[in-house]
Amino acid sequence: MLTAFGSPGAALQARTSDVIALLNQRARDAWRLGPDATLIGRVVEWLRSPGNSIVTLGDASYPRALINTPDPPPVLYAKGRLELLARRSLAIVGARSATPGGVRDAEAFAEALGHAGLTIVSGLANGIDAAAHRGGLRSEASSIAVVATGLDKVYPARNRDLAHQLAERGLLLSEFPLGTPPLASNFPRRNRVISGLAQGTLVVEAALHSGSLITARQALDQGREVFAIPGSIHSPLSKGCHWLIKQGAKLVESAGDVLEELGMQTAPAAASVRGDPPSEEEVQLLEAMGFAPIDLDTLCEQLASPVEVISTILLKLELEGHISRLPGGLFQRLT
Amino acid sequence: MLTAFGSPGAALQARTSDVIALLNQRARDAWRLGPDATLIGRVVEWLRSPGNSIVTLGDASYPRALINTPDPPPVLYAKGRLELLARRSLAIVGARSATPGGVRDAEAFAEALGHAGLTIVSGLANGIDAAAHRGGLRSEASSIAVVATGLDKVYPARNRDLAHQLAERGLLLSEFPLGTPPLASNFPRRNRVISGLAQGTLVVEAALHSGSLITARQALDQGREVFAIPGSIHSPLSKGCHWLIKQGAKLVESAGDVLEELGMQTAPAAASVRGDPPSEEEVQLLEAMGFAPIDLDTLCEQLASPVEVISTILLKLELEGHISRLPGGLFQRLT
Repeated sequence: MLTAFGSPGAALQARTSDVIALLNQRARDAWRLGPDATLIGRVVEWLRSPGNSIVTLGDASYPRALINTPDPPPVLYAKGRLELLARRSLAIVGARSATPGGVRDAEAFAEALGHAGLTIVSGLANGIDAAAHRGGLRSEASSIAVVATGLDKVYPARNRDLAHQLAERGLLLSEFPLGTPPLASNFPRRNRVISGLAQGTLVVEAALHSGSLITARQALDQGREVFAIPGSIHSPLSKGCHWLIKQGAKLVESAGDVLEELGMQTAPAAASVRGDPPSEEEVQLLEAMGFAPIDLDTLCEQLASPVEVISTILLKLELEGHISRLPGGLFQRLT
Repeated sequence: MLTAFGSPGAALQARTSDVIALLNQRARDAWRLGPDATLIGRVVEWLRSPGNSIVTLGDASYPRALINTPDPPPVLYAKGRLELLARRSLAIVGARSATPGGVRDAEAFAEALGHAGLTIVSGLANGIDAAAHRGGLRSEASSIAVVATGLDKVYPARNRDLAHQLAERGLLLSEFPLGTPPLASNFPRRNRVISGLAQGTLVVEAALHSGSLITARQALDQGREVFAIPGSIHSPLSKGCHWLIKQGAKLVESAGDVLEELGMQTAPAAASVRGDPPSEEEVQLLEAMGFAPIDLDTLCEQLASPVEVISTILLKLELEGHISRLPGGLFQRLT
């Protein structure tokens, strides 16, 4: 209707027959029934509470990242710091029945990424989601919970305190009208908003067939990055993450890995590997190299050493991040 | 010299000045000193023992995979089942100070891959190497140890029993003359033979900067597959594997993952994920799909369901391996 009439006002003023012609059966029925006065009254009342607001597709505060998805919700109910919708954000999702280690990782990644300026988006579920929100709330970038119920309800009840903290220092968000109970069919639909709000989705622990994989899949469909934390091949809750990595998700070991991929950190890839100071023979080779690209034969001549000795030292220097291998059999000193 | 003269016989008959012109200083000195009669006597004596043999670049039994590397050793000393050199093989390498879990994994992967027909190649070191040999020895495809000493020595001494088993039911291999002690500089050189013999290299546990990463790097340079087993992001012995996966190594969770990549198993990628039987709504959708490619809108019409419901079921079916997503927004039933 927005495409056909240009604005909600124009649609409301259009001839009924023109409107009806555009709609499928379910929408026609809704149109004939007209607005639900009770629900509207409830929403108007709800909007009087401080912190509550409604954001529609046409509003300036509607999240830009979400507009660039195939199916953005026309209306978002919001409770909390609406300005968080304008920030760079990362979704962190995973298993409800997470391991203690997974919970710790989710919290630590969320806190570190929050301090780096990313608002943490998740779904207020138990386990990884709740841990991600807790970690995010510790930074100024804070956290957004996208829920599958009306904002006048908290699901699961166990996360009531967390929901209150999010309403005060973060943001609660829902596309579902007030009063909507937790319905199984709404959760996958909600997941597309979690991935759609964020620049990328990090999966911390996930079983095969789990909802977290649906969120990750939707992130890929939306053209966003997908990150996954690996674990033991014997842990059922790592199998979903491993499956994602096999499908092309980025394996991450640290918050730095995520920031680097999102272009928020300029450290060279080698930096994470660099560590040991070069040995005496390595220093000798580095000095012989200079900083211009050089080939193996020239190095062997300069140092009067056989190929196998020099190539072994070059491999070590490469692994330690001191040199880089260039196309055409050339090597270049980096440090 | 082989390139210049065509055969060792022709080289030996060539004029000394022609030979000398080809050689660098070290090789000239060796040429002037002439053959080491003591070493030759020792080798001739050693060759009298059953199971001992020498394979040179020109022999039919010289491993074909090794010829296709930049720097194949001209001579290989061998002890055991020489016919193993003609078989498809996989290198399994990793940390000497492996965890008990890593040792179990190395042994289990080696045994399963051995039963699938792959001879297991490793370096007779403690930890992962030894476990890989033990697992490989349990299958008919057996195991090859490529060592960095002369074959009249066993290093490390702790693996003496294992070396005897390999000599009897597998193969010990070295490019170094009899009497060569364990020298640090020979180990990376030896590693190129481990990776060069095999179709791929599987790294089970490895620290950053470790020799296993050098072997993996050499496998890549030799155009072979590299596989790595992931683990906890908090385990130092998984960091090398994670680094390799980030560089493009294949993450593997099972022997099947390796076999599939080597084209030795035709199971579709989805098979490892498939599990739960489809639910009632999934069966209904599968039946509506038929086995020809179909688009989302057509499915929604056929089932008179909204897009979000159908696309959610499609995602589940895809994750479970029952359908495949084709280019152009089409879906196809697989099961």
